[in-house]
Amino acid sequence: MEIVSTCSEMRKLVLDWRRNSNFSICLVPTMGCFHEGHLSLMRTAREKADRMVVSLYVNPTQFSPGEDLEQYPRNMRKDIHLAENEGVHCLFTPDSSEMYPDGFQTWVEVTKLSKGLCGKSRQDHFRGVATIVAKLFNIVQPDVAVFGQKDYQQLQIIRRMVEDLNISVEIVGYPIIREKDGLAMSSRNTYLSQEERKSAVCLWHAINRAHEMVAAGMDSCSELANHLREYIKTYPATRIDYIFIGDPDTLEKKETIEARTLLAMAVWVGKTRLIDNTILMGTSQN
Amino acid sequence: MEIVSTCSEMRKLVLDWRRNSNFSICLVPTMGCFHEGHLSLMRTAREKADRMVVSLYVNPTQFSPGEDLEQYPRNMRKDIHLAENEGVHCLFTPDSSEMYPDGFQTWVEVTKLSKGLCGKSRQDHFRGVATIVAKLFNIVQPDVAVFGQKDYQQLQIIRRMVEDLNISVEIVGYPIIREKDGLAMSSRNTYLSQEERKSAVCLWHAINRAHEMVAAGMDSCSELANHLREYIKTYPATRIDYIFIGDPDTLEKKETIEARTLLAMAVWVGKTRLIDNTILMGTSQN
Repeated sequence: MEIVSTCSEMRKLVLDWRRNSNFSICLVPTMGCFHEGHLSLMRTAREKADRMVVSLYVNPTQFSPGEDLEQYPRNMRKDIHLAENEGVHCLFTPDSSEMYPDGFQTWVEVTKLSKGLCGKSRQDHFRGVATIVAKLFNIVQPDVAVFGQKDYQQLQIIRRMVEDLNISVEIVGYPIIREKDGLAMSSRNTYLSQEERKSAVCLWHAINRAHEMVAAGMDSCSELANHLREYIKTYPATRIDYIFIGDPDTLEKKETIEARTLLAMAVWVGKTRLIDNTILMGTSQN
Repeated sequence: MEIVSTCSEMRKLVLDWRRNSNFSICLVPTMGCFHEGHLSLMRTAREKADRMVVSLYVNPTQFSPGEDLEQYPRNMRKDIHLAENEGVHCLFTPDSSEMYPDGFQTWVEVTKLSKGLCGKSRQDHFRGVATIVAKLFNIVQPDVAVFGQKDYQQLQIIRRMVEDLNISVEIVGYPIIREKDGLAMSSRNTYLSQEERKSAVCLWHAINRAHEMVAAGMDSCSELANHLREYIKTYPATRIDYIFIGDPDTLEKKETIEARTLLAMAVWVGKTRLIDNTILMGTSQN
């Protein structure tokens, strides 16, 4: 596995792969501290192309002031080991002087899709995401890129950006990987205390409850949201950021749970903000 | 010469050129209604790469409300003829349903460089420019792109965008082409009445006057600007939008005219807004 830390080396490597061997390339953008979720993205990527690049960069511009940029877990040595085990061909680990040199001032913004859900509380978060992903696409020029569906809004934003800016890459979304008790895997789970870890499962339980209620005929988005709100409140140390039930493509709120309706949530458990989502299959024909 | 109007055809053509013939590609983005300025860009482009693509698209998102989007001169038949004569290999003429499909919402913004000069009066203009140029770069994937220096601020913004977003393209700026009396060539010159056409030369005369004054020892940006302001006012039907004297890279105002100082102007002549610029070579050592 090659470990590359500058954009020019990275570009040279992928150019060599293409020119000399006509290799196709798949990119998995990450912020490191790999867990089973990341590893499953890598396994998918491996099947999608001849060469797999994993980028590992804790992107400061997608953290709002006061967020956990400083504490965000980092474990490069372990990440290198794990990536190597998954057959990653190149780990791209730029630093911020490389990604945001002096005078940097260009931003990519996907306006409507970035407004609601996580965008409400995380100001400029998705502008940072769209910008760094656009940069990575230009540096690595992948044929395919794989993203986790846990960050559902992010995935939709990237899909939209790729279409709107005519970027020549296929975007693949990969299902959420969960702990045994259902908690969606996330680097931020390491923040949780033992007690908080018990409450953290509330998102998964709420998802199951939502599926059950919809199967039993519940078709009102606001009623379901209110119910889930009350339900999550019964877990100690939780504070709901949002519960969104609406259109999975436009991320607009809806009144009725139709076939394919997105349920997405962000819940604070202690000082840790957790997200999760699912697609509800309503029976309403509206 | 091929005439292509969809992104997918355009992409297929350049992919064929690259894969089958290993051709390098040069792009000249234009809004059509070709004059000698455009033609000289094409002649430069022809020398820079094996294949030359000229895009012809009057981009609505770079016009502010109330501007001249509707009146902007169009002459496709003549443009095709002129492009063919210059050895253009492909004329890319998309329409707006192709470039801005339903749901479009992704914007590229170069923040600081877009604020002053033309950005002050032309709200969102440079956001529209950066976005359409990013799209064209992704569609055509050129090795080189050629832009006129008449739109000096635009050129700086594109250079910055390319660097910030790691776009793999060489940007070439080409000097301003002028009419016999010095008026910078522009599609908008066709708007001028006979009387206005006489006043339009004020920008060029002001540029010459500035060079003379700097050569004679003038080293104050504000004094020079005031002088030029008074001078331009002596021409009938003129109204100054801005006179900028400052740093040619950051587009920040300066006090002293140092070696390499940008003079850029926008002047209304009747209902036509004209721009022009030059680099002053001050003798001050500050």
